[in-house]
Amino acid sequence: MRNIDEHTITEAVIARFADTPDARLKQIMTGLVTHLHDFIREVKLTEPEWEQAIRFLTDTGQMCSDTRQEFILLSDTLGASMLVTALNHAHPPGATEATVFGPFHTDNAPRLPQGADIGAGAPGQPLFAEVEVVDLDGRPVVGAEVDLWQADAEGLYDVQRPELGARRQARGVLHTDAEGRIRFRALVPTPYPVPTDGPVGRMLLATGRHPWRPAHLHFRIRAPGFATLVTHLFRDADPYLDSDVVFGVRSSLIARFEPQPASPAQDGSVVDGPACTLHQRIVLAPA
Amino acid sequence: MRNIDEHTITEAVIARFADTPDARLKQIMTGLVTHLHDFIREVKLTEPEWEQAIRFLTDTGQMCSDTRQEFILLSDTLGASMLVTALNHAHPPGATEATVFGPFHTDNAPRLPQGADIGAGAPGQPLFAEVEVVDLDGRPVVGAEVDLWQADAEGLYDVQRPELGARRQARGVLHTDAEGRIRFRALVPTPYPVPTDGPVGRMLLATGRHPWRPAHLHFRIRAPGFATLVTHLFRDADPYLDSDVVFGVRSSLIARFEPQPASPAQDGSVVDGPACTLHQRIVLAPA
Repeated sequence: MRNIDEHTITEAVIARFADTPDARLKQIMTGLVTHLHDFIREVKLTEPEWEQAIRFLTDTGQMCSDTRQEFILLSDTLGASMLVTALNHAHPPGATEATVFGPFHTDNAPRLPQGADIGAGAPGQPLFAEVEVVDLDGRPVVGAEVDLWQADAEGLYDVQRPELGARRQARGVLHTDAEGRIRFRALVPTPYPVPTDGPVGRMLLATGRHPWRPAHLHFRIRAPGFATLVTHLFRDADPYLDSDVVFGVRSSLIARFEPQPASPAQDGSVVDGPACTLHQRIVLAPA
Repeated sequence: MRNIDEHTITEAVIARFADTPDARLKQIMTGLVTHLHDFIREVKLTEPEWEQAIRFLTDTGQMCSDTRQEFILLSDTLGASMLVTALNHAHPPGATEATVFGPFHTDNAPRLPQGADIGAGAPGQPLFAEVEVVDLDGRPVVGAEVDLWQADAEGLYDVQRPELGARRQARGVLHTDAEGRIRFRALVPTPYPVPTDGPVGRMLLATGRHPWRPAHLHFRIRAPGFATLVTHLFRDADPYLDSDVVFGVRSSLIARFEPQPASPAQDGSVVDGPACTLHQRIVLAPA
């Protein structure tokens, strides 16, 4: 094929994928080329704009590290992550809804006992939480692995604090007890901006978008026989619930963070300042 | 906006770009989100596939360096580069056609006099070339800057040879003389595979595509009053003219590389083995 022009090139490229051994990969590449070319034609992308796109993608890749995933952040802020989540979690009525995974999960969170303080020294108001994990019939899910992570009161995840080295804060893995419950102390979540010191931050600034996420706790819950659930619990009355920069808010995930009366706290510790309690039920769908 | 689902998310994301100060950026982001979401919905991208896409893009960014541009290679192999070129070079009849820029241009090529050997020791058969640069009326373009670059007979550009350090081979910048001509010695181009040791190579392998480009010389020609021309001259009778991995071949750019009779060569040097001559006219469009 020679003399390809702007009208014939899409078919020419798709034809080149004709021999892809994996049918699903062929479908994905065909769809990708079709929509990528339609986009370029529709906006009539100029060569300087193409160069800028190449630079943007390169910078985004080079910003990624063990503790920073700028392409996930890009996917999140373009709504692609939430779209993938929505497409793949047509969950049965009654099950807790999923939301985005985000770029700050790590695989090496500490495994903690019931009642642990996952904050581990991170700044923030104390949160005393009890979460009950049940199936669609309300029966406890025993021994479920609950992976929790959150930002601290300064809006930072531990992986965003180089001074911590390999030490982990404000994340941990607990397992539900015989009643399907976990109890833990954490931090009252606060709204925070996604990182704005990279290409995605420059995109948000250039497009007049704010970088804020409403306050939330992250959960990933895994148990044999159940669909893995990646979700958040959002703090009620947060000012960003209707403008989450990553489009992740679902009404059903907004939880009541109850201001706690004076100490002693639920776990017996003395809490001087403000604190909250959280009681929430999470319903897993079958695998 | 809460409770966004797979049908409402696209409008929700586009609405977030409503306050983009730059109207063109707003148009591009709107088009990007529309087509990106359409793609994800059409193929119903799964979460493991999304993770693979994030990894692929990250790896592509991290493969980029001062001498390697894997995102340009990705754009080239998906036909996006040639599409952008085609959209932006609706040149007048008679003008030489443009093709892709490619990932191997450098800004620090040596400035060379008429008759120079741009090969500078790179392996390959000698090519004795004379290129005439004219306007649409056939009048010589005097003092045009002609930036030339090519792969050597082993299929490598100088920037792909770490052993060269900062030394440049098989590239150079010449200026047309009073008759609009440049004369130079170079290498007879040979077909070569694009780099396959990175993510783009893995994509080509997984999709059953060959990585070959037909033999060519790169040109970028700049002269006051004329549109900058980025193009190739392809070698006639190359086996990959109809399956260029980057979709860059135009019939009008296929040139006759004439086997040269025995030495002495055009420039007086003695050539023991096979060599070629090339005589080509390039027509610039007005700016």
